[in-house]
Amino acid sequence: MKIAVLGYGNIGNGVVRIVDELSAELKARAGEKIEVKYVLDLRDFPGDPYESLLTHDVNDILNDPEVTLVVETMGGTGAAYKFVKAALEVGKSAVSSNKALVAKYGSELLAIAREKKINFQFEASVGGAIPIIRPLYACMTGTRINKIAGIMNGTTNYMLTKMDKEGLDYAEVLKEAQRLGYAEADPTADVEGFDTCRKIAILSSIACGKFVDFEDIPTTGITNVTKEDISLAKEFGMSIKLIGYSDFTDEGIVSEVAPKLVAPESPLYAVSDVFNAIMVSGDMSGDLMFYGSGAGKLPTASAVVADIVECAKNAGRTVYEGWADEKVSLVSPKSRESRFFVRFDASLAAKAGIDVKICGGSAAFITGPTTYDACEAKYKDLSPVIIGLL
Amino acid sequence: MKIAVLGYGNIGNGVVRIVDELSAELKARAGEKIEVKYVLDLRDFPGDPYESLLTHDVNDILNDPEVTLVVETMGGTGAAYKFVKAALEVGKSAVSSNKALVAKYGSELLAIAREKKINFQFEASVGGAIPIIRPLYACMTGTRINKIAGIMNGTTNYMLTKMDKEGLDYAEVLKEAQRLGYAEADPTADVEGFDTCRKIAILSSIACGKFVDFEDIPTTGITNVTKEDISLAKEFGMSIKLIGYSDFTDEGIVSEVAPKLVAPESPLYAVSDVFNAIMVSGDMSGDLMFYGSGAGKLPTASAVVADIVECAKNAGRTVYEGWADEKVSLVSPKSRESRFFVRFDASLAAKAGIDVKICGGSAAFITGPTTYDACEAKYKDLSPVIIGLL
Repeated sequence: MKIAVLGYGNIGNGVVRIVDELSAELKARAGEKIEVKYVLDLRDFPGDPYESLLTHDVNDILNDPEVTLVVETMGGTGAAYKFVKAALEVGKSAVSSNKALVAKYGSELLAIAREKKINFQFEASVGGAIPIIRPLYACMTGTRINKIAGIMNGTTNYMLTKMDKEGLDYAEVLKEAQRLGYAEADPTADVEGFDTCRKIAILSSIACGKFVDFEDIPTTGITNVTKEDISLAKEFGMSIKLIGYSDFTDEGIVSEVAPKLVAPESPLYAVSDVFNAIMVSGDMSGDLMFYGSGAGKLPTASAVVADIVECAKNAGRTVYEGWADEKVSLVSPKSRESRFFVRFDASLAAKAGIDVKICGGSAAFITGPTTYDACEAKYKDLSPVIIGLL
Repeated sequence: MKIAVLGYGNIGNGVVRIVDELSAELKARAGEKIEVKYVLDLRDFPGDPYESLLTHDVNDILNDPEVTLVVETMGGTGAAYKFVKAALEVGKSAVSSNKALVAKYGSELLAIAREKKINFQFEASVGGAIPIIRPLYACMTGTRINKIAGIMNGTTNYMLTKMDKEGLDYAEVLKEAQRLGYAEADPTADVEGFDTCRKIAILSSIACGKFVDFEDIPTTGITNVTKEDISLAKEFGMSIKLIGYSDFTDEGIVSEVAPKLVAPESPLYAVSDVFNAIMVSGDMSGDLMFYGSGAGKLPTASAVVADIVECAKNAGRTVYEGWADEKVSLVSPKSRESRFFVRFDASLAAKAGIDVKICGGSAAFITGPTTYDACEAKYKDLSPVIIGLL
């Protein structure tokens, strides 16, 4: 099987390397030799060991009947969308690591793949190396899925862990994360929860079989989480994690991205540093958790390569047909019952009229079961930051 | 698709129930209605809601061309083997939850399935509801697997957790586990590690593509683990878990089942109660972990049902071809370098000539890097119990 890799960044290079280095293993697993025939990038890479594969023109790939699969590792929803759609339309399967593409155009691209009896796969778009997409559609078919909740962004998990362990402020850990290359120069997508939002949208679409639009998911990042929040949470025996979740209830799907207090009973409680973990609860299966490197060049590339192998083994047959192109209306999380961590200025502690814990200039307590809306109304005089319990 | 369930115990009943209760979902997922036509058991079940499906004669099933798949939930390697083999030979796919059957006869049964272009699947045989077998052969194809290590027996993990949390002795927690139904009247298979041994043998065969014989895996249970061991391990910052592992090294495969000291850095450290967790390390993927209910009627049955769906979607096509029928020679763990927890009678502590920690009548220390054999020889005067570090 000849393939083309679109985008020769970190992940693209990882894919080319693994296909080369694991050549013999992949041949045995896929039943045929897998070979990268083209690498598409606008840039030149003089001296690169795979320089001879480089092309600047996507038509070299689209017009070459020998190429039966394209790998999209460009990112974004511009050229990535255009090229993947074009490839699928001429009957080439596609594998993508790009959550933005899948979250926005997944319905359409899956429909084309179905129609052409080819494959559009994207295991690497959520959780990096962690198998989660295939387990959802191929391993958890003997259960109803009640809930998905996960730590799906390594950057923010690294930052929250660092704030916890070293008692540092948000701004300090962000700088450190940027220095180490864990956070980008513009960290918005990570710290504002946009990355997690796209990922939980994808998993939710798979789980419910309909289109969950990431734009409908209420999303709060970690920019307002203070080191005092983390210390106070710890006093209540909990950790703070940026969680993307969907509850599949009789009233509909409740989906949200937000920092949450996580109790030690949850397997997500101790997931730290850049690791990701996704919990899936089923009525028959109970709670399952999938844990591992959520990002990184080779881990992510290894998931892309697993998709390539799957496509090779299933020529002429759509393995995962995808979700219906029918958009789901989501239920607001604000009207659902939960318990809440309420943090406010310590000077107002007396006014709260409730036992509070104090850390630095902040005070906090945890409510009994109530809704976010009711909690906000009840304590509005405290101008609090309110964080739900997972 | 009409199926037959062989063995109407706990798991068998769970399978029949899920196929019935999730009928609509399964039809959508499998692309056709799945229906249990027969339940085979020697016993009668008067008044059971599925009583009408009962037969005592396996030939009713083998001779019925409408039945294209059998589910084996009988356990053991007697009739289970005979019936599954006979079903495969007449061209019926088979799904099994029976680790003893798969560990002993997997090579042969997989070969028949390959030859007949049907399926022999057994996701439920390891880790209950936890997807681990399909992830190994379908999701981790983009990496070389370096190590598998897991807590794969809920009974012993429950017992070790209880010894830890409540400071109880082995004999006391065994009684409690039996009272709660977590341990059987004859607990040998669990507490001696035989159950874990079969499970790690199966996973290792999948990972290396050749037959790893469970009879070749050195196996030590938890019967000699004392509450003092657990307390002493805790003083060193570690927990004790019954681990089945295989290291895939350049020198060959090292496989073992034994209690191990687990450091907090390992995601297995905090896995407690009846939960199972299996870590798989790949050169490209990094460390992945799969966590969930390792046993239980409905969780295990849900994994069986997922296999049924997979078989339904792949009529005429062997999804997992299995391992080659070539037996692997294993490398002894005793000659490999590790670090060891050495526990001995506290009265000998002075004689040890080394800093030790004391708990009750026991003393212990942790060695530097050495082999089990060297450690045993060096400290033979202490008549110690030696437990390796994971």
